[in-house]
Amino acid sequence: MRIALDAMGGDHAPGPIVLGAVQAVQRDPDLRVVLVGDQAQIEPHLASAQGLRDRLEVFHCTQVVGMEESPGMAFRKKPDNSITRAWQLLQQKKVDAVVSAGNTGAMVAGGFLLRLFLKGVRRPGIAALMPTEKGLSVLLDVGANVHPKPEHLYQYGVMGAIYAKHILQRDKPKIGLLNVGAEEDKGNELAKETQDLFRAGPLKDQFIGNIEGRDINKGVCEVIVTDGFVGNVVLKVCEGVFDFVMKVVGKEILGALQTDKLLGQQAFQGIIKRYDYHELGGAPLLGVDGICIICHGSSKERAIENALNLAAKHGRAKLNELIVKELGASAQASADA
Amino acid sequence: MRIALDAMGGDHAPGPIVLGAVQAVQRDPDLRVVLVGDQAQIEPHLASAQGLRDRLEVFHCTQVVGMEESPGMAFRKKPDNSITRAWQLLQQKKVDAVVSAGNTGAMVAGGFLLRLFLKGVRRPGIAALMPTEKGLSVLLDVGANVHPKPEHLYQYGVMGAIYAKHILQRDKPKIGLLNVGAEEDKGNELAKETQDLFRAGPLKDQFIGNIEGRDINKGVCEVIVTDGFVGNVVLKVCEGVFDFVMKVVGKEILGALQTDKLLGQQAFQGIIKRYDYHELGGAPLLGVDGICIICHGSSKERAIENALNLAAKHGRAKLNELIVKELGASAQASADA
Repeated sequence: MRIALDAMGGDHAPGPIVLGAVQAVQRDPDLRVVLVGDQAQIEPHLASAQGLRDRLEVFHCTQVVGMEESPGMAFRKKPDNSITRAWQLLQQKKVDAVVSAGNTGAMVAGGFLLRLFLKGVRRPGIAALMPTEKGLSVLLDVGANVHPKPEHLYQYGVMGAIYAKHILQRDKPKIGLLNVGAEEDKGNELAKETQDLFRAGPLKDQFIGNIEGRDINKGVCEVIVTDGFVGNVVLKVCEGVFDFVMKVVGKEILGALQTDKLLGQQAFQGIIKRYDYHELGGAPLLGVDGICIICHGSSKERAIENALNLAAKHGRAKLNELIVKELGASAQASADA
Repeated sequence: MRIALDAMGGDHAPGPIVLGAVQAVQRDPDLRVVLVGDQAQIEPHLASAQGLRDRLEVFHCTQVVGMEESPGMAFRKKPDNSITRAWQLLQQKKVDAVVSAGNTGAMVAGGFLLRLFLKGVRRPGIAALMPTEKGLSVLLDVGANVHPKPEHLYQYGVMGAIYAKHILQRDKPKIGLLNVGAEEDKGNELAKETQDLFRAGPLKDQFIGNIEGRDINKGVCEVIVTDGFVGNVVLKVCEGVFDFVMKVVGKEILGALQTDKLLGQQAFQGIIKRYDYHELGGAPLLGVDGICIICHGSSKERAIENALNLAAKHGRAKLNELIVKELGASAQASADA
């Protein structure tokens, strides 16, 4: 398994990004990481990894897409940027996966420009993990596609269900459509047409219909389908509310304790560590011919290590073959109908 | 101040709804509440309020719109329902405000059907309060309008700013547009066109541009503008994450405490009480000619009491006059341009 890692992407690049790669290859002996970026900036962080250098390669490039830059403009002005180079390595089959904590829009655009889509996939979508009362669920799309068609949302359901089954080990995952009410006639036209597709497709037994925002964390379904605008907002709102509530809890509950301060703090840190959205280790762009994991801009070592391991797991589970097969079955069912 | 209260609306109606009215008139000597609903079901809950009966009237009607019913169908089949009757009282100027914890869609549709819009308002929107690190902000629309035009979103910003200033007492409230990134070119067409309207209008100095989901709870602005689909999802996601995190905190932090259990529990209850979305006391439908407060379906006495007091505050602040004036100024500015 070879992974191209954008060593220049993210708020803390390149130091913690490179360290994450070192930790990941230490943990997984089958992993090889190609660090894409400025060699002079990367090498110093590899000094401690001499024994692992046969599995830590540097692919030198000179440019970086800024976190806030418009992708189209950046690609034109900076053809030697680390994101484009990583995607090209994937296109040339020199790596099996690309991982980046850089500009999300540029990562998505990089894959879209090369049209590296799996057979049958109309538009790839980003799948984020959501902690719920019943374990992790997957929410998609969280930002690849802000103007989706019903067919795209349907495909997100199919790909999300495969992801939930084979990566999250959730048997027969239930699929819900995020909407403004549970009743069938609720919401906008997109939601209504998407429901019809699910009800007519081979996953109809797994489709539970509309769900509301408050159902996500209750874990009523393992796959939550929505458009990239709503999904992106929801993901960031979850992050914001979590941070906000934990700040209040830290101040008011931990602050009120006298004898048990240490016990309280340990439990508090345990929650932060388990649910922190910055640590969940990356969201796959599903539907790409290859593997693409997009990390939070704030990612440090541990998040990058987790993302690289997720990419490896994704490859071993042969998710892409399963996606192509299932979308083929859906297309067949719709042709028969 | 006379308020028509839908005594039949909400998960717990009519008992706690009627009790909320009793408490509100006890608290505010200027308040008169018309309880709209089935007299036989309402009267028993008024037994304890004999001394207040001159300010607690019953308007008898025989039908109720179910919480999950489609508004259009319900209005046709049940012309004598409590929501329609409450709106008719407002239309006939027999009351100054309507309050309901019933079917939100039916409450909105009731106002829209009668076209009870303020002068200059294109579409009313529901404004919800959001707790933030810097106090309460207002998020709108949270469900009245799932297919808004840029002009509607612009008007939500204007009305939200007036609400934030005069009800939340936030001087020169900042207005942000909820989007998938902070950069100007982010998001869908609706977001892009809405930005242009704000930048050209009289509130341009208060408009801070795009904000992301994670900015809401940080309190980066006092008014968050979005369409009714996204806003509704966001409101319910906030509720869901809050409930989820507080459950985890209760189990893991309070559960870990030994000597300080009671101190921890008191602080925990304090947080629940302050931020519980069920208790915030109702969201106004801004832009209506009159006052309309929509409460959470799970509302009990305290939420209803808060909603009735909010309606009174809304009336005393003469919000509607301010809205008409400000929208007039915007229209004038746009005609001059």
